[in-house]
Amino acid sequence: MPAYRFVHDVMLRDCEPSGIVYLPRYFDMVHVVIENWLDEALDWPMGQVQGRDGLCLPFVDIKAEFPAPSRLGDRLTWDLTVRDIGRSSMQLRIMATTGADSRVSVAGTLVLSEAIALRTRRWPEQVVERVKDYMISPGSLAETALQ
Amino acid sequence: MPAYRFVHDVMLRDCEPSGIVYLPRYFDMVHVVIENWLDEALDWPMGQVQGRDGLCLPFVDIKAEFPAPSRLGDRLTWDLTVRDIGRSSMQLRIMATTGADSRVSVAGTLVLSEAIALRTRRWPEQVVERVKDYMISPGSLAETALQ
Amino acid sequence: MPAYRFVHDVMLRDCEPSGIVYLPRYFDMVHVVIENWLDEALDWPMGQVQGRDGLCLPFVDIKAEFPAPSRLGDRLTWDLTVRDIGRSSMQLRIMATTGADSRVSVAGTLVLSEAIALRTRRWPEQVVERVKDYMISPGSLAETALQ
Amino acid sequence: MPAYRFVHDVMLRDCEPSGIVYLPRYFDMVHVVIENWLDEALDWPMGQVQGRDGLCLPFVDIKAEFPAPSRLGDRLTWDLTVRDIGRSSMQLRIMATTGADSRVSVAGTLVLSEAIALRTRRWPEQVVERVKDYMISPGSLAETALQ
Repeated sequence: MPAYRFVHDVMLRDCEPSGIVYLPRYFDMVHVVIENWLDEALDWPMGQVQGRDGLCLPFVDIKAEFPAPSRLGDRLTWDLTVRDIGRSSMQLRIMATTGADSRVSVAGTLVLSEAIALRTRRWPEQVVERVKDYMISPGSLAETALQ
Repeated sequence: MPAYRFVHDVMLRDCEPSGIVYLPRYFDMVHVVIENWLDEALDWPMGQVQGRDGLCLPFVDIKAEFPAPSRLGDRLTWDLTVRDIGRSSMQLRIMATTGADSRVSVAGTLVLSEAIALRTRRWPEQVVERVKDYMISPGSLAETALQ
Repeated sequence: MPAYRFVHDVMLRDCEPSGIVYLPRYFDMVHVVIENWLDEALDWPMGQVQGRDGLCLPFVDIKAEFPAPSRLGDRLTWDLTVRDIGRSSMQLRIMATTGADSRVSVAGTLVLSEAIALRTRRWPEQVVERVKDYMISPGSLAETALQ
Repeated sequence: MPAYRFVHDVMLRDCEPSGIVYLPRYFDMVHVVIENWLDEALDWPMGQVQGRDGLCLPFVDIKAEFPAPSRLGDRLTWDLTVRDIGRSSMQLRIMATTGADSRVSVAGTLVLSEAIALRTRRWPEQVVERVKDYMISPGSLAETALQ
């Protein structure tokens, strides 16, 4: 399965006093994975998306499961794949594991929008081409818990 | 519908450069709503949950929809209700509106756990009693988009 | 001493796994104090500063001392006073206490700037008038540790 | 000058709606620099400091200057040096530049403490040895603005 991979060690700022990762921090990591993917894999850094291009990429929905908690120092390996890309929307799957242990499973929909009006916009052609490298066929996810 | 209400004005820290709220910040607000509810409505502040009681309250799943973006200065009215409470789990519904405009709709499951081992624990009896004030019958949600 | 007061209970997101407040969170609280002061005391909410007025208010310097750590559930009482206001700069003192216990002492300089060019701008006259209510004479700080 | 270097590209989460970095995020980056330095250069990851060793490393004071703002996509090069190490305290200098442009200059004091009682503790001998590689003589800073 073609996936963009990003490794993050859990740091102080990620954890709450009980020692486990504070839920909103997982979504922050998800955003970091996406921004790095845009930059490194799609050659479309967020600074260009929001700057020169005057666009933004908000989520319209997201869901996540947390099979097991993570703790300070855990090495999280994040894998991003694309489940589908429409005219202006994109369905992502982003998962974090530590060794063989699943920690986070996220599915969400991004929508390309004009930054001012937030009207949807068609994906740039070259972005669609590059996204295809990270795309999996929708049917292949049938075995996973979160769809 | 009995709901715990919390009002939050969108601040600088909540927004990204495009001017709209940065997704992970919504989940941070969700946590603030929950912690204030625990403290003010259930008389069970997180400092006691994690301190004297040695427990923690992680989410095991969460899903959210974002029908429209929020911007700096928007007044978000958050409403929390309980859909179901089990032996050690609790299903919450948390929604944010600005006037008649729906901004965020969250459904998630908290699980009461021992802070060290993260084994599930039965809810304290007096907490269950107070939670009932915020509970809605599961069937009454049929009309909402996110269940 | 005329001070703007803001009360904040330390929450999960504020703390690191050791149980004490994570340093950058103190600066986030400082920003919340300032934004609430702008809104409630100066009638100049940040949404207007950055929106209609096209301005921003960055710090050019800041220093802080942390005489004692804070923990989950601690009630921090923040007091903001103005030490000096120039043509486009303002020197703030912001302190947090829990009971008689000093936790944070901050001194910093804000500079009013145009949001695009970040050139300095003169304070609006009515803002200067309202700021005077929170101003202390510079000499009166001689007894404090952080100046 | 021996320095530990860490590169960070400014991301969405770092910026406020005006487009510049939100001040508290700089302190978060400072913490990331320190935690990576502990791990990579001192072989003393925070997970061990707070876990097996039962210690923590809070700041007791910090000061910062921000000569120019940073924006989404800016590549910040952070350099950490040690100005002095005492029995249980350490004075750090941490600076961020973008090209020849100075963005942040931080000086702060960390104190090694027991995580529970927060009493000061003597630095482990092997840590002191490794810190020496990043140490500059205190007098050599005379030319810099922030000391």
